[in-house]
Amino acid sequence: MKLLEPLTIRGMTLPNRVIVPAMVTRLADEEGWVTADIIDRYVRYARGEVGLIVVEAMAVHHARSGPLLRLSDDRFIPGLAEMVTRVHAASESRIVPQIIHFPKISRSGWRQTIDLLSEADIDLIVEQFGDAARRARQAGFDGVEVHAAHAYTLSSFLSRRNTRRDAYGGTLEGRLHMVGRVMETIRAKAGDDFPVAIRFLADEYIKDGYTIPEAKLIALGLAQMGFDYISLSVGGKFEDVEHQPGKVPDPYSGYSGDRCMPGAWYPPALHAGLAGEIKAFINAKGFRVPVAAAGKMSDPADAERALVDGQADLVGIARGLLADPDWVRKLRLGQPERLIKCDYCNVCKHLDAAHKKVFCYLWPKGSLQAPPDEPDRKAPAWGADGGGLSLRLVDGAVELSWSKAEGAARYDVYRAADDGEVSVEDAVKVTSWTDATVLAGLRYRYYVRACGPAGQPGVPSNQVTVEPPLPDFRRKNRDMESAAVISAG
Amino acid sequence: MKLLEPLTIRGMTLPNRVIVPAMVTRLADEEGWVTADIIDRYVRYARGEVGLIVVEAMAVHHARSGPLLRLSDDRFIPGLAEMVTRVHAASESRIVPQIIHFPKISRSGWRQTIDLLSEADIDLIVEQFGDAARRARQAGFDGVEVHAAHAYTLSSFLSRRNTRRDAYGGTLEGRLHMVGRVMETIRAKAGDDFPVAIRFLADEYIKDGYTIPEAKLIALGLAQMGFDYISLSVGGKFEDVEHQPGKVPDPYSGYSGDRCMPGAWYPPALHAGLAGEIKAFINAKGFRVPVAAAGKMSDPADAERALVDGQADLVGIARGLLADPDWVRKLRLGQPERLIKCDYCNVCKHLDAAHKKVFCYLWPKGSLQAPPDEPDRKAPAWGADGGGLSLRLVDGAVELSWSKAEGAARYDVYRAADDGEVSVEDAVKVTSWTDATVLAGLRYRYYVRACGPAGQPGVPSNQVTVEPPLPDFRRKNRDMESAAVISAG
Repeated sequence: MKLLEPLTIRGMTLPNRVIVPAMVTRLADEEGWVTADIIDRYVRYARGEVGLIVVEAMAVHHARSGPLLRLSDDRFIPGLAEMVTRVHAASESRIVPQIIHFPKISRSGWRQTIDLLSEADIDLIVEQFGDAARRARQAGFDGVEVHAAHAYTLSSFLSRRNTRRDAYGGTLEGRLHMVGRVMETIRAKAGDDFPVAIRFLADEYIKDGYTIPEAKLIALGLAQMGFDYISLSVGGKFEDVEHQPGKVPDPYSGYSGDRCMPGAWYPPALHAGLAGEIKAFINAKGFRVPVAAAGKMSDPADAERALVDGQADLVGIARGLLADPDWVRKLRLGQPERLIKCDYCNVCKHLDAAHKKVFCYLWPKGSLQAPPDEPDRKAPAWGADGGGLSLRLVDGAVELSWSKAEGAARYDVYRAADDGEVSVEDAVKVTSWTDATVLAGLRYRYYVRACGPAGQPGVPSNQVTVEPPLPDFRRKNRDMESAAVISAG
Repeated sequence: MKLLEPLTIRGMTLPNRVIVPAMVTRLADEEGWVTADIIDRYVRYARGEVGLIVVEAMAVHHARSGPLLRLSDDRFIPGLAEMVTRVHAASESRIVPQIIHFPKISRSGWRQTIDLLSEADIDLIVEQFGDAARRARQAGFDGVEVHAAHAYTLSSFLSRRNTRRDAYGGTLEGRLHMVGRVMETIRAKAGDDFPVAIRFLADEYIKDGYTIPEAKLIALGLAQMGFDYISLSVGGKFEDVEHQPGKVPDPYSGYSGDRCMPGAWYPPALHAGLAGEIKAFINAKGFRVPVAAAGKMSDPADAERALVDGQADLVGIARGLLADPDWVRKLRLGQPERLIKCDYCNVCKHLDAAHKKVFCYLWPKGSLQAPPDEPDRKAPAWGADGGGLSLRLVDGAVELSWSKAEGAARYDVYRAADDGEVSVEDAVKVTSWTDATVLAGLRYRYYVRACGPAGQPGVPSNQVTVEPPLPDFRRKNRDMESAAVISAG
């Protein structure tokens, strides 16, 4: 499996091709100090044997930013060093911090934009990135990832909506200039042998934002600057946020934020093609810098395909590894059926938006960390009815219901549409589920699996199938249920 | 060339595979009557031998809608019949009206949403669509296209943001129910032998909107209803409009409207892949209904490729045929070099948004119609300097300037990046142009062609090439010009 092959990046050897991209946890304390909870969160990923852990974005500047980690002062080094030591002790996983500068922003909706930055402000930010990288090295991190994505300062320089008309804007070279200075200063302060990566947007997904043709050129510019891997995200900009009076604007609340953390109704691996175009372009120009793709790639088949097809060298899986930090280890053990599958309900995204501690809905109720992986622990069992799954077709929707299973923490709902591939449609904690997206003329097959608190999957329930009849458009056919062909598989 | 092959749709034979999709002209009079100008606009397309002309959306209901055509009363039939007669007399082009129902909307930003429609309102709209189709047939149109795209009533029923919880929403079948009733009533009132097509969105491109997986199911539902071709657009929704106080919200002012009429910085044929996925899906289900793709496909190579690769059966080209109504005829004559190439400046889009008569920036100043095609008319000629094209590299931008050409109405600027394919970057009426998207490490080649008022292209100017040097990130290198390698080709 290509996913499990190691990769060496400027002396840093990743045991495999899977990255946990930077994800806000809100587990740091109010002053940005490392806590036991946040160390546990990252050690948990290491136990799961992920290739690279990118620790949530840390501010390079002195900003009050609530429970977010900081790298803006030497006093933060010891706590972070403790985190790194614990992670390194847990497995071969490598760990780097994502370092960020973000603009000032107020509840009124006002935010500092880069056209307001003076030359002196810019010089200071450049130095702050350099110092943060130096501290990352002192703390024992294996490298550093520069945050040039989403709504933040460096991304705003790269943006097609950069309105500066001096050396830092106007042209594509101008838009790249700030990141170039940051890279140069990091190399000077952290050393030429320290891996320095960058994350930027393959598509801004905002009006007047840049799209793939410019993203290819930006990636080439970043390769020219010598970044050691290029990690791709999309969207997450301030330009299309939903403004809520009295609330700090959330860059993930608009359409571009939707694309950034795409929900359940988006196709899987929906941005892998953008990574493929960018990788092909910079490779053709003679640059071999590894490219990381992300975006609903938690299905091992999708992740492996991206590597095999040459769309990416690394795969970033955020929500999928939050749901199951043992994702890589279970694959290494050849037990993909034991994966706890993210259903992209985005509860994690909403917790972050609400400034609450981030956890996964699929974890046992009340837990702040993923449960330990206990393969031997007893799996939930159905009663004599083998699940007793049944369905009703009501006004064009399929209503499923089933029996409780002994020891179940949740139920995964499986569906095959029109005899296609079976996929997990949802994961619920109740014993019923409604499918509102069925269409007449297709055939649907369903079954349910009960899963234990540690994700131990029980045996599948009985199967049911249905073929909705073509509706009568004059008036909704109230006899639809009786007309429907329903059979127990 | 597959583009030039005929296609028969329920007895309506299109001479080729090119469609002019519905485009607002604002050439009707304030009461929605047909005018000489609007007839000339559509006859011009027929002279250019396009396969199918879809006349701008006509209201099926009694709404004051300014200079937009209407089909809401029998009294509109004679004027439209005159238009159809003139078009049929001009060529083999077929002509259908797009029929629309749109919600009430006010300058305050308020708009009528479909959850406000009563059963009686719905029954009325269904009848209005049926009567409009019957009038279209009486006026001599070759068929009718139902407008179920963008921000309007039918599209709002299909939308994933349809909030109705009765038989007209809630489920996918519910969202399809309204269109199903409309189709059934049209067949009843216009006859089973009258071609009835539909246009809907392959992707809503709004937050919480549907994407390709649901679009495939909707397309299948429309195929089941018996529509005779399925024309695909994207976006253009009200949900992400830019609100301007005192102005009626423009559904093409947000990101989804940007995707609907993508500007110059979007890749060509950027939505052809969506059409390909939809066509493959409904074909696999046994439906052969023709699929039309659209979106920056005015380059004949892109349009032909979509047909050859099986992404579509028809190609919709709106802005490209506005710029050059003779697009199809020039291809038939084997003269692609004579095409007037749309540069997607979107002046036409802005004119529509400003409620002004819509024309193309590439037409001679002041004209309301494309100039006649006069291949024998003298092409513009350069002076002794052969164009005298020269360039300067200033802070990462290439500044081009050249001499006036005798008889030039405009200048097309050609660029080849890194010895790749040559493409028209822009069309300007002055003798200078700045390229702000060049990148160090690539090689750029430029030349300019002067074009006459009817688009007669003159000979290319001299060529110039440049290789921008890698910038110094400490400070912008002010000696960049001298450092640049500039050569005259």
